[in-house]
Amino acid sequence: MSRTILDLVTTKAKAAKTAARKLANVSSDVKSSALLTMADNILKSNDKLKEENQKDIKAAQEKGLASALIDRLTLTDKRVDEMADGLRQISALPDPVGEVTRMWRRPNGLLIGKVRVPLGVVGIIYESRPNVTADAAGLCLKSGNAVVLRGGSEAIHSNIAIADILLKSAANAGLPDGCIQYIDVTDRQAVTELLKLDEYIDVIVPRGGKELIRFVMENSTIPVVKHEDGICHTYVDSDANLEMAESVCFNAKVQRPGTCNAMETLLVHESVAAKFLPSMCRKFAEAGVELRGCEKTQKIYPDVKPATEEDWRTEYLELILSIRVVGSLGEAIDHIMNYGSHHSDAIITDNYQKSQRFLQEVDSAAVYVNTSTRFTDGYQFGLGAEIGISTQKLHARGPMALEELTSYKFIVYGNGQLRE
Amino acid sequence: MSRTILDLVTTKAKAAKTAARKLANVSSDVKSSALLTMADNILKSNDKLKEENQKDIKAAQEKGLASALIDRLTLTDKRVDEMADGLRQISALPDPVGEVTRMWRRPNGLLIGKVRVPLGVVGIIYESRPNVTADAAGLCLKSGNAVVLRGGSEAIHSNIAIADILLKSAANAGLPDGCIQYIDVTDRQAVTELLKLDEYIDVIVPRGGKELIRFVMENSTIPVVKHEDGICHTYVDSDANLEMAESVCFNAKVQRPGTCNAMETLLVHESVAAKFLPSMCRKFAEAGVELRGCEKTQKIYPDVKPATEEDWRTEYLELILSIRVVGSLGEAIDHIMNYGSHHSDAIITDNYQKSQRFLQEVDSAAVYVNTSTRFTDGYQFGLGAEIGISTQKLHARGPMALEELTSYKFIVYGNGQLRE
Repeated sequence: MSRTILDLVTTKAKAAKTAARKLANVSSDVKSSALLTMADNILKSNDKLKEENQKDIKAAQEKGLASALIDRLTLTDKRVDEMADGLRQISALPDPVGEVTRMWRRPNGLLIGKVRVPLGVVGIIYESRPNVTADAAGLCLKSGNAVVLRGGSEAIHSNIAIADILLKSAANAGLPDGCIQYIDVTDRQAVTELLKLDEYIDVIVPRGGKELIRFVMENSTIPVVKHEDGICHTYVDSDANLEMAESVCFNAKVQRPGTCNAMETLLVHESVAAKFLPSMCRKFAEAGVELRGCEKTQKIYPDVKPATEEDWRTEYLELILSIRVVGSLGEAIDHIMNYGSHHSDAIITDNYQKSQRFLQEVDSAAVYVNTSTRFTDGYQFGLGAEIGISTQKLHARGPMALEELTSYKFIVYGNGQLRE
Repeated sequence: MSRTILDLVTTKAKAAKTAARKLANVSSDVKSSALLTMADNILKSNDKLKEENQKDIKAAQEKGLASALIDRLTLTDKRVDEMADGLRQISALPDPVGEVTRMWRRPNGLLIGKVRVPLGVVGIIYESRPNVTADAAGLCLKSGNAVVLRGGSEAIHSNIAIADILLKSAANAGLPDGCIQYIDVTDRQAVTELLKLDEYIDVIVPRGGKELIRFVMENSTIPVVKHEDGICHTYVDSDANLEMAESVCFNAKVQRPGTCNAMETLLVHESVAAKFLPSMCRKFAEAGVELRGCEKTQKIYPDVKPATEEDWRTEYLELILSIRVVGSLGEAIDHIMNYGSHHSDAIITDNYQKSQRFLQEVDSAAVYVNTSTRFTDGYQFGLGAEIGISTQKLHARGPMALEELTSYKFIVYGNGQLRE
């Protein structure tokens, strides 16, 4: 049995590698039109997809999964439309492959260029939402990469159905056979084996909970681009426009609390805390936000629970907010650097020096002045797409779009130069 | 005992992390002048360094290490000078940190910039040559990174002495305490522990033999930029200028055979093989190159050993060359893609279409037309420095210099924008 899983995973990864070599030389036109074909066929298979999806939903109900999870799992007409629409949008984006980002001539006459090339084979390990199957495959193909997909067991029927439509469409539209591989084994051993295939897979992008990401990091010999917690802060400075602060903080917390770029901790300078917090806290309370504050916060607005050390390190992903009053900008930065996850952090201030210091000293993927951390997103940044938000510094940081799915090579034009 | 090693390694990595946060905000002027101070103090400590180096040499002789290894280990006046000189050159390079590589305004008025920042803490695990201690520390500091160094046990006295001078000089010159950490434990457990400290270390750069690199890849939870084999090819096309081909191939094999960018396999189109190979092979033989050829090669130039399947996969790193006669450009590309290591590969041709096809289809870190693979090098490419040559596609590919030791962050200037 275990031998069979290794064989199956290896065969698929190897086929992806073979396809990747061909795909790297496929024109942008062919790739774009293949994505449109994939979108059309997803729409045409709406009934079949919902039928397969029902099997997953039934199994989830039998297992007694939480209704929020079942909701994420469910394919509706609208969600099938959105999947097709996503593929069309990716089709319309500029192809990053082949761009010469720099070219220069050396004193000995060599002409050297740096050219974007696909990474090769991208492995995506993800949980729950079946639309990731189409999104991830679309982004990888557009950037010239073959893709090995491994979704969660709870969505296995939906994922297999989607992958099946995609790979048939891709082959019909002239993309190389095997450029989309779906690992249809629910045994976790399949993941463990996959993570050792550095000979065939160039990068692993895990998308899911903490546990999954830790598992991938600990077991992979393939480079990983990880997407971990967002413990995001907004610091309301003594020189803040308090009206703007209130609307920005409210947006950062309440607009969509379940996302990694939502605010989890509000930091307020002590000189404005008494003026700012009462009305801000009332507004949060009215929106159903549970508040947990430091001692100073509790004195100003008694209707908050005491925040513990643990609160500062917690990504709530729901309508809970921790609040701390700080004595200075330096203290705010220290708090962010010590407790934060280097994802997205904002300062609200009208002071020039303080805005610049915050941008310089806060080492997060996205650092903001006078706006909401909710903007950390490939679409909002104008990158046209997003395969995830990297919380590491190597290769890609923050929102990852098509360019971040490429590498480069050096091309060198000579006429007989020799190294001395 | 094992507890002590973990404590020691963790303490050093943690100290590096603390220093890294400060170092990210140190000006280019301070960093440059610190590197000059380090260079001066290396020179002043010439006698002390050679004294400590003698301990390593004596131990190596007692262990009966090969003379080539002892030579690499030995510090001479010239090598100490070169170490100091290396630091001065790094000092003079432009600082990559703080460069805004792109800045754009979004329709909602947000101004978004992408700014180069240091990676944070770089871990270097290396073997043998003690000058790497100074080179690596210099490159990391210049690019704003704290560095955790772990050299080979055979150079332990030399490495400790060099690191000691560097870290004292750095502190005296105003760099944050702890920005250079040397792991002075020879037990391999120290490496194993280090590779799990992803909380403190942002990237691991292993420099050494295959075994070391495999060990690092298999045990690290920290992202790795690896530097593996160079199985480099030169393909002499049917449309090659054979005179140029002969001088370029000779340069690629003989100029410095022990390097990763030296040619290991020569591919020759069958239509020019009979004309090209006899004189080329004689020239190689005169230079002491052992030749191993395919059957067709053996027919043309009988004085070659038969090449085995294993030969096509071997990085000799010495005066041995495998030779294969191929029927077409496609066959040459297939050979390179199947047996090569995607490091550096060249075509010699006067044909425009074939040169373009080779540049497009060969997926190696550096792809050449009409020149020697020996040019794959940070200095030769004009990057001003080199910390290694990456053979992976993630983060950095090919020669890695200062820019490749940086990450980026997004800075966002708003005036109250909210996400809808």
